[in-house]
Amino acid sequence: MQAVVIEDRTLTVVERPTPEPGAHDVVVAVRAAGVNAADLLQRQGYYPAPAGCPADVPGLEMAGIVSAVGDQVHEPLLGRRVCAVVGGGAQATHCVVASEHLIFLPDHVDWPQSGGFAEAFTTAHDALVTQAGIREGDRVLISGASGGVGVAAVQIAHLIGAHVTAVTRTSEHHGALVALGADETVTLDQVSGLDPVDVVLELVGAAHLALAQHLLAPFARVVVIGVGGGGSRVALELLLLMARRATLTGSTLRSRSREEKATVADLVNQALVPRWTTGELRVPLARTFDLAEADAAYEYFARPGKFGKVVLCVED
Amino acid sequence: MQAVVIEDRTLTVVERPTPEPGAHDVVVAVRAAGVNAADLLQRQGYYPAPAGCPADVPGLEMAGIVSAVGDQVHEPLLGRRVCAVVGGGAQATHCVVASEHLIFLPDHVDWPQSGGFAEAFTTAHDALVTQAGIREGDRVLISGASGGVGVAAVQIAHLIGAHVTAVTRTSEHHGALVALGADETVTLDQVSGLDPVDVVLELVGAAHLALAQHLLAPFARVVVIGVGGGGSRVALELLLLMARRATLTGSTLRSRSREEKATVADLVNQALVPRWTTGELRVPLARTFDLAEADAAYEYFARPGKFGKVVLCVED
Repeated sequence: MQAVVIEDRTLTVVERPTPEPGAHDVVVAVRAAGVNAADLLQRQGYYPAPAGCPADVPGLEMAGIVSAVGDQVHEPLLGRRVCAVVGGGAQATHCVVASEHLIFLPDHVDWPQSGGFAEAFTTAHDALVTQAGIREGDRVLISGASGGVGVAAVQIAHLIGAHVTAVTRTSEHHGALVALGADETVTLDQVSGLDPVDVVLELVGAAHLALAQHLLAPFARVVVIGVGGGGSRVALELLLLMARRATLTGSTLRSRSREEKATVADLVNQALVPRWTTGELRVPLARTFDLAEADAAYEYFARPGKFGKVVLCVED
Repeated sequence: MQAVVIEDRTLTVVERPTPEPGAHDVVVAVRAAGVNAADLLQRQGYYPAPAGCPADVPGLEMAGIVSAVGDQVHEPLLGRRVCAVVGGGAQATHCVVASEHLIFLPDHVDWPQSGGFAEAFTTAHDALVTQAGIREGDRVLISGASGGVGVAAVQIAHLIGAHVTAVTRTSEHHGALVALGADETVTLDQVSGLDPVDVVLELVGAAHLALAQHLLAPFARVVVIGVGGGGSRVALELLLLMARRATLTGSTLRSRSREEKATVADLVNQALVPRWTTGELRVPLARTFDLAEADAAYEYFARPGKFGKVVLCVED
């Protein structure tokens, strides 16, 4: 197979042996694989892949066709169109996936969209629904709303019936975010003037959270799943948290157990795939690149101002 | 009645009309009333009493004998020995209490202990059990362990079967804390060397939490209910919270609704009073003062180094 490989903090595409599935795994012939902030961290030597994943092949999500199944996989998975979140190794022409982590694609969606679905929508659903317990009528503040997870979160929160305030670096994506379901969009310098919120989905980090903590309504839930643009160390006012009886939860998907990830994938198959099938959910694409252009894709990803997902595509 | 009154940030004891109970309330003839950090804040003009409480009579807890009952109170409460958490007004010879907020005293406990029970044990139980979901075998870190809430929390955590690490300003109370159930005691400068913990009960604030955040085990729960000695603004490392999938919750009792406070009192009557009756729980007293000495009691409370509760007593 062809695989993107990290060597001395640079990316190259090299030939590697095509992996065999473990007893309960499948191999997916990859057609598209999303780029995520974690890939860039991993390239820089941070955020190493968990045990059991290729150490030097990045990529947390991909979509493709099941091309091989393990001995103990008894469902008829061969040939199915699927996508999945994986611990690493997705940016290659073939990728091993736990069979219970598969998300089954709607018929109509194309490969680039499918390659950018799994990580963003799984992360956003887990954070908003499972961690924050978002409910109809909640006022939700989503920072980094133009990014991959952000555009997923805006749509999910809107479908649940929340009032969605999308925070972005500039106002240029206002129209696109409103089209996805945002009720209003603001830039960082406008956050302090907002009404109280019930849920904060923190995708940017300290620079946003330092402001957002002053907006918390009673029983507010803050879920921190990204610190990319805004820094990790925040000056948190404990008396504010106490007065609002607020909860701040940090979360990542990558470190979870195989069983936990299966539960998360089940939820996505049940709650999100039907809404993706109807077109109520979609994957906005900032830009696609060929797998061989991974280096250029990472450079593009690192730049501010894009809207939606960056996806690597494998030639048919 | 006699009441401690805040006027221009000083305390005096003055004659006031004895209050009448509301339809669902009782009046308690107070025999003892604990002093809490909130009283000192209120004296300084911070942390005002909630609506419906006397604005200038401090005191969040008291014990005594029910001396009058409201029209709609149908239980036989007159003459019962009770204690309670109230929104204010406890440091007086008479105090109005919602009938559903009463905690019923074991026969053997004396008035000073009873006057120092309600706020500390209710707060500690709510934080450890209801907020943090403490379980047998959890490793629990309790800061400010020598204070009123701290000595309650050490006992409750120990009874549940947790491993209790008590953090104190100095090592002088080591023996007393071990006698209450602490497995180990450490001073602030020793916190960084501890093993990971599942629960942090934060009674001190930023100075302790800045260290404790580095000790969080996976799924750790941090409950912040006091910032007295350590400051309110903490530099929190969001990547640590994310990696540990930790949750930080802020909480206060005073701002809760009448219904919520009834639920909390029910839990105390069911879960804690039986263990107080058997002597498994007790209220360590730092010192008692007469109600007329409230000013001296507050001064004493503000000094470091005490162990347990400061209680104002009403002459028989």
